[in-house]
Amino acid sequence: MEFFKVLSLKESYELLQKQKIKRKVEEVELAKASNRILAQEIIAREDWPLAARSSMDGYALRAEDTFGASETNPAYLHFKGEILIDKPADFSLSSGECASIVTGGILPSGADSVLMVEHSERLSAELVEVRKAVFPGENVLLAGEDFKQGEVVFKSGTPLDFRQIGALATLGYARVKVFSMPSIGILSTGDELVEVSKKPEPGQVRDVNTYTLKALLTKYGFFARTYNFVPDDKEKLKEAIKQALAEVDVLLLSGGSSVGTRDLTLEVLKDFPGSEILFHGLALSPGKPTLMVRWQDKFVLGLPGQVTSAQVVLMVLGLPFLRFVAGEEGAFANPWPYKTRARLTRNIASKQGRFDFVRVKFDPETNTVTPVLGKSGLIKTLLLAQGLVPIADNLEGLLSGQEVEVWLF
Amino acid sequence: MEFFKVLSLKESYELLQKQKIKRKVEEVELAKASNRILAQEIIAREDWPLAARSSMDGYALRAEDTFGASETNPAYLHFKGEILIDKPADFSLSSGECASIVTGGILPSGADSVLMVEHSERLSAELVEVRKAVFPGENVLLAGEDFKQGEVVFKSGTPLDFRQIGALATLGYARVKVFSMPSIGILSTGDELVEVSKKPEPGQVRDVNTYTLKALLTKYGFFARTYNFVPDDKEKLKEAIKQALAEVDVLLLSGGSSVGTRDLTLEVLKDFPGSEILFHGLALSPGKPTLMVRWQDKFVLGLPGQVTSAQVVLMVLGLPFLRFVAGEEGAFANPWPYKTRARLTRNIASKQGRFDFVRVKFDPETNTVTPVLGKSGLIKTLLLAQGLVPIADNLEGLLSGQEVEVWLF
Repeated sequence: MEFFKVLSLKESYELLQKQKIKRKVEEVELAKASNRILAQEIIAREDWPLAARSSMDGYALRAEDTFGASETNPAYLHFKGEILIDKPADFSLSSGECASIVTGGILPSGADSVLMVEHSERLSAELVEVRKAVFPGENVLLAGEDFKQGEVVFKSGTPLDFRQIGALATLGYARVKVFSMPSIGILSTGDELVEVSKKPEPGQVRDVNTYTLKALLTKYGFFARTYNFVPDDKEKLKEAIKQALAEVDVLLLSGGSSVGTRDLTLEVLKDFPGSEILFHGLALSPGKPTLMVRWQDKFVLGLPGQVTSAQVVLMVLGLPFLRFVAGEEGAFANPWPYKTRARLTRNIASKQGRFDFVRVKFDPETNTVTPVLGKSGLIKTLLLAQGLVPIADNLEGLLSGQEVEVWLF
Repeated sequence: MEFFKVLSLKESYELLQKQKIKRKVEEVELAKASNRILAQEIIAREDWPLAARSSMDGYALRAEDTFGASETNPAYLHFKGEILIDKPADFSLSSGECASIVTGGILPSGADSVLMVEHSERLSAELVEVRKAVFPGENVLLAGEDFKQGEVVFKSGTPLDFRQIGALATLGYARVKVFSMPSIGILSTGDELVEVSKKPEPGQVRDVNTYTLKALLTKYGFFARTYNFVPDDKEKLKEAIKQALAEVDVLLLSGGSSVGTRDLTLEVLKDFPGSEILFHGLALSPGKPTLMVRWQDKFVLGLPGQVTSAQVVLMVLGLPFLRFVAGEEGAFANPWPYKTRARLTRNIASKQGRFDFVRVKFDPETNTVTPVLGKSGLIKTLLLAQGLVPIADNLEGLLSGQEVEVWLF
């Protein structure tokens, strides 16, 4: 068996970020662009708002006409007319005049601000009482205040959620170019595996990883196809990997938790002509035996066999990598987008030179995290955890009461 | 116009939680159960693990044979045989004996613990050196340690993510009963609306809400169908609502941001025979004009017209309600599952008697939140915010430096 340099988590990110990825681009309707990654630059084609608009129901007027106005010392303005939402006024305002306006209505020329309806009273057809001073620009969205024509609003590589979708709709992008999602496969290996529907014989376990890893990817926006598990047999494993790599861009291999079967996976992958072993072993706990192999434009990520360990590696390495393959800028710079900080309720020991992720329960009421106790391999530890606390490789542990980073699920 | 009691957010939760919902149940394959809500109780049909298993690669042995063993004072055990992962041993261990075992291997009778391979040396075919003491049960998952036969593992109403899916796979549930997802529709109203693909005339705006609300639901696991927007016209609105309610369980109506059109929506909904106005107006900011109407088994949630306000109401009221309709126990008890706490970087004023949600930026490095400044209605405030800070109705505001609750997006 050859020995490969054991990489730190950071080094593995750096190495992966250098990989050339062939990404396809497709154009989709905006309504279907949610959770996708932009594959084009988005430029504002016009000022938005197009013209100054009211952000309140009230009266458009000149701010200077209200200076000094109050409940006890109101000002009085001449009512010039009504401005509906979809029809700009066919009049302009002079000093001493006002016009009723609805939220979203276009400010008439001459007006510079809007008085909220609550601070006024319509005394007659002609007269409005003003009980509060407004400043110029108050309750008005100025032309171009959201976006200026020609402004780069989003760069290629931006993930799209409701916020970006809202901005794209505002800017008139009814269709956008996004990167095609990478196709992902999951293949579990192990002589001990049986179908979930079967009752295991002593020594056997149900194929938990395939389902758990698929569900984890679903939670974070990725679809994965699953393959039937294979035993720890060189020819069968080779055949299964070959078939999967004909169909998917990234294959997640889980299993091979004991030393012998880890070697088997490596041996099989080395037989793929031109395959490149990017790393085999990370200074990561759990996740030491993690394996990453590139073959042509495909990648195989070998995950630990224990489901609890496989989960951590898929989260801290697999998901940033999949987001990178999917075209997201900054996937490795911000490997976990759901970070927060909380206080530890007890000490956690760790080893220097190894990046640890500790499963924790999180209490948002007290903003504390508590390590989930329990032996490695217990499904209960998977069930109870709500996040991971990273312990950097230069630390010997974390102290009770310390505010620590939490990667929330 | 009639006046309805303005409810607090809490009262609106209580009222909604009392609604009788007709939920359908379907049975799905476990691989498709992710993000669904359980509609059955899950009981462990057997102890898990079935028998004591090793959680490490090493040697199965009797702990008492290792007491006092250390690097400088090793113990020596007789090698009895090898235990592979899928085949229980056909021998038992006596005092002074050990057997090699892989992770997941079944402990032979007579053994009570496992020594990690790192703390041993195989001196010969017959002899193993033991360099560390182990305690009884060390590195062993006991029979039934995860789940005991007959134990209720999940109640009906539990949402399923990768953790629950992992436990279900472990327990042999290849198919599970889940609640059918509610069908949801989105209908925007407003004379000012134009298609996203069109360039608005002065006073017009593109239909931003339909896309934003749909994308927001997508982010949180719900699919919504969208309807073509309608103008503020009683007959057209009635026809559109009627058509939508023939197809969906919950209709989100957005628009009617000005007083007149709010009344129009209410007027139309009152015309539906037997419709019940659950509330019209909440002591909530943004979200004061929120409307909830029940008609037969259907619900119409009227959201504010400004997209930034509609977003907040959909998050703080609409999503808990949809989770409740979808069958989730505790949807209102825990209205936002992505809560954390962070320190405010500046004061926020609020009004007593009104529940405020303030849009904030969140910095996970310093664990601080900063209010997003900007006029109501600016799309930029939608884009920049990463969470909401609630200000309870009995508070006059929050102070800079205070640790506050954050509802992270």
